[in-house]
Amino acid sequence: MKTVGTLLFPGFELLDVFGPLEMFGMLRDDYRLEMVGETAGPVASSQGPHAIADVAIADAGPYDILLIPGGRGTRREVANDTLISWIKRHAAACGIVATVCTGAALLARTGLLDGRKATSNKAALAWVKQQGASVLWQDRARWVTDGKYWTSSGVSAGMDMALALIAASEGAAKAAQVAVYAEYRWGRDPDDDSFAALYDPGNAGKAT
Amino acid sequence: MKTVGTLLFPGFELLDVFGPLEMFGMLRDDYRLEMVGETAGPVASSQGPHAIADVAIADAGPYDILLIPGGRGTRREVANDTLISWIKRHAAACGIVATVCTGAALLARTGLLDGRKATSNKAALAWVKQQGASVLWQDRARWVTDGKYWTSSGVSAGMDMALALIAASEGAAKAAQVAVYAEYRWGRDPDDDSFAALYDPGNAGKAT
Repeated sequence: MKTVGTLLFPGFELLDVFGPLEMFGMLRDDYRLEMVGETAGPVASSQGPHAIADVAIADAGPYDILLIPGGRGTRREVANDTLISWIKRHAAACGIVATVCTGAALLARTGLLDGRKATSNKAALAWVKQQGASVLWQDRARWVTDGKYWTSSGVSAGMDMALALIAASEGAAKAAQVAVYAEYRWGRDPDDDSFAALYDPGNAGKAT
Repeated sequence: MKTVGTLLFPGFELLDVFGPLEMFGMLRDDYRLEMVGETAGPVASSQGPHAIADVAIADAGPYDILLIPGGRGTRREVANDTLISWIKRHAAACGIVATVCTGAALLARTGLLDGRKATSNKAALAWVKQQGASVLWQDRARWVTDGKYWTSSGVSAGMDMALALIAASEGAAKAAQVAVYAEYRWGRDPDDDSFAALYDPGNAGKAT
């Protein structure tokens, strides 16, 4: 049984969190889900609905998988030293660290991605790049793996990455079965990023 | 500004709720999201994480759009007369009623789908059909519309349906832009249901 710890902060993006957790959560014999916030209790998403942090960062982890979502709240949290310090300390101890969308900006601020390949939401990539000048940012990728660090592109890309994580850990057949249960058209190719071409890399675009 | 009311009950499926709400929530000038439960407060999903019902059914709606998710909890809620009565009363007053996955079973129990076309998760369709013998259940469809009733297939199909709802209300260009922001590969064809063929219609399959 592996535990997936998912970081919540005010302004997290709903699908960055609950897309991957739908996939892990289908395998209730393999994955336990825990939500972690700077404090325990309700956390407002970028879209309005609230989810609950089961534990505060002071009492949390390390996890087998640490999932860091994006969302508009990342614009504030990159300057939250308490949160960035926690991510840095716990990411080092976690088996796998996975980010969705602008969650890569939070991980980049720890320095742990320096010299590593990573990606993020293509619409926000110019801003994300500013959070880690030494990261080898990939302008075109659905998701990127470099050692234990998995970073995905925007929002929905987190579901493809989560299924790839399940495939790497539990086998491709089990991941494919999860996709069927979720009636999800799994994009299996990490290099198939049709959205990258829609953006000028120098354009910060819509903030998510 | 339209209000989307989303019904939560213990054992709701995470992505049935937060996939569609990601899409509506991208358009914060057009849609306001409200979560409604039998009582207000935390509600546990089928996967474990909790979301918060902003209002109790006694104080809720009617809504422009009423969204009813599926999940394992539907097996219990089909026998919850309080909840089914509320759905029946409010669905009649809502502009659009949309279900994801086995959420169609809850709507079917109201009788409002009798004589109408509808669909649900293909893995659970045999059980769902038992909840409404007079519904014109569609064995193969990503989603189905019949008047103001929109019913989608399993889990991920809710995202395609939500984008189609946005397209119907705000125009196809706006829906396509939402899909790009979410880096979601929108399935625009309601008849493209590759998952239906995987199941014997007589097989109840995995319960979601």
